[in-house]
Amino acid sequence: MRIRTEQRHDDLVETAFSLDDVPGILWTPTTPAAATTPSPLVLLGHPGDLRRMHPRLLARARSCIAAGFAAATLELPGTGDRPRRAEADRARADLQRAVRAGEPVPDDVVDRLVLPLVEQAVPEWRAALDALLARPDLCGPVAWSGGIISLGVRMAVIEPRIAAAVLFAGSYVPRAIVEEARAVTVPLLVLLQWDDEGNDRQHALDLFDALGSREKTLHANTGGHTGVPAFEGDDAARFLVRHLR
Amino acid sequence: MRIRTEQRHDDLVETAFSLDDVPGILWTPTTPAAATTPSPLVLLGHPGDLRRMHPRLLARARSCIAAGFAAATLELPGTGDRPRRAEADRARADLQRAVRAGEPVPDDVVDRLVLPLVEQAVPEWRAALDALLARPDLCGPVAWSGGIISLGVRMAVIEPRIAAAVLFAGSYVPRAIVEEARAVTVPLLVLLQWDDEGNDRQHALDLFDALGSREKTLHANTGGHTGVPAFEGDDAARFLVRHLR
Repeated sequence: MRIRTEQRHDDLVETAFSLDDVPGILWTPTTPAAATTPSPLVLLGHPGDLRRMHPRLLARARSCIAAGFAAATLELPGTGDRPRRAEADRARADLQRAVRAGEPVPDDVVDRLVLPLVEQAVPEWRAALDALLARPDLCGPVAWSGGIISLGVRMAVIEPRIAAAVLFAGSYVPRAIVEEARAVTVPLLVLLQWDDEGNDRQHALDLFDALGSREKTLHANTGGHTGVPAFEGDDAARFLVRHLR
Repeated sequence: MRIRTEQRHDDLVETAFSLDDVPGILWTPTTPAAATTPSPLVLLGHPGDLRRMHPRLLARARSCIAAGFAAATLELPGTGDRPRRAEADRARADLQRAVRAGEPVPDDVVDRLVLPLVEQAVPEWRAALDALLARPDLCGPVAWSGGIISLGVRMAVIEPRIAAAVLFAGSYVPRAIVEEARAVTVPLLVLLQWDDEGNDRQHALDLFDALGSREKTLHANTGGHTGVPAFEGDDAARFLVRHLR
């Protein structure tokens, strides 16, 4: 893990790093307690492009820090400063064509867009977990929080250090991932925007139904994709405190 | 309003009253602040029979008191010590027959069971509001919290003193009430038990969709009708604090 920059704020330190050419960001608390006690880590999922997502990720990291955690994220394959993925670009164009034409998006387009991304990203996030948890100021249990939901589901299934997950309903989800969701067992909080322009509400409800966890909660709110109410940030922090402490 | 008994606990006073032969219970805080400042009132809805429901109502009242409110409830028409409603008993028998036979419950059975109950109960709850808010220790804004959802919807539509409502999805809801739901405008928190044996999940989601409020949130949890997790009580209290203060 190569540290690129370190920026001190009042409440947190933001460390930009890279790991095998994958850029990432780590946010750690500056409280006196954090100097002697390691902080449980929250992995912040996002739809790609760390620069564009930075203001929202920083706000979410701040909420984690206030709840007593550290937070970290990685750039996704094919976005931000990473090399484009030609196959994903073709699949995205096919998807947008179907949406513009008002047609259902074919399953194989969703598969071509999402599955290779998940296949490539999961080992990267797990390697980042290895590197981050080797630091003396970080510890498990670890939580996943955020989109894309297919990556969150796969991580929750195969990464035993993840003890709880906050998932954002809101992406096209391959059928294979919906099947995989049945194998998730960790406590879940799933956020759904009821009037999301870009997503199919019934698909999101079907995925919630498929998730295998005995403790799962759905929070649905009125409004579009980016309209998640501020109080859901507090609810997510309380959910994480319940399960990481 | 005739006071029947008054029972002092550490944190609250439980006052059993009756109003025109309708029994009710009022829970008020014992804090020093409550002696000088009136408490906003939460109306606790329930499926009927105050004696049977008392332990759960007392726990919910306690959560309201802890959040700085008073709470009150009324016996429903036809349950507990009140005269039976023959028409409702016939409709309930028809409903149970359909459920046992695995058949869909006919709309007219739901209408006969619920609509006369709502028609009779609403003026009783509004009269109770008049009497309760005349007390110097109680004030508006008022919230509705609990089932049955048809009564909560009607109260939210026609009673202007209600500023927010927590609704429990979980009863058979007449089509007329689903239509009426579009006229609700106050902030809502709707609780749904995802695996409720006695209720149709899709109907509950359709009702949530129909509710007209700009701010509405659905909390769905795994488990059956009586399995609402304890943390939902805290969430409901925070929702009420956001909207009654």
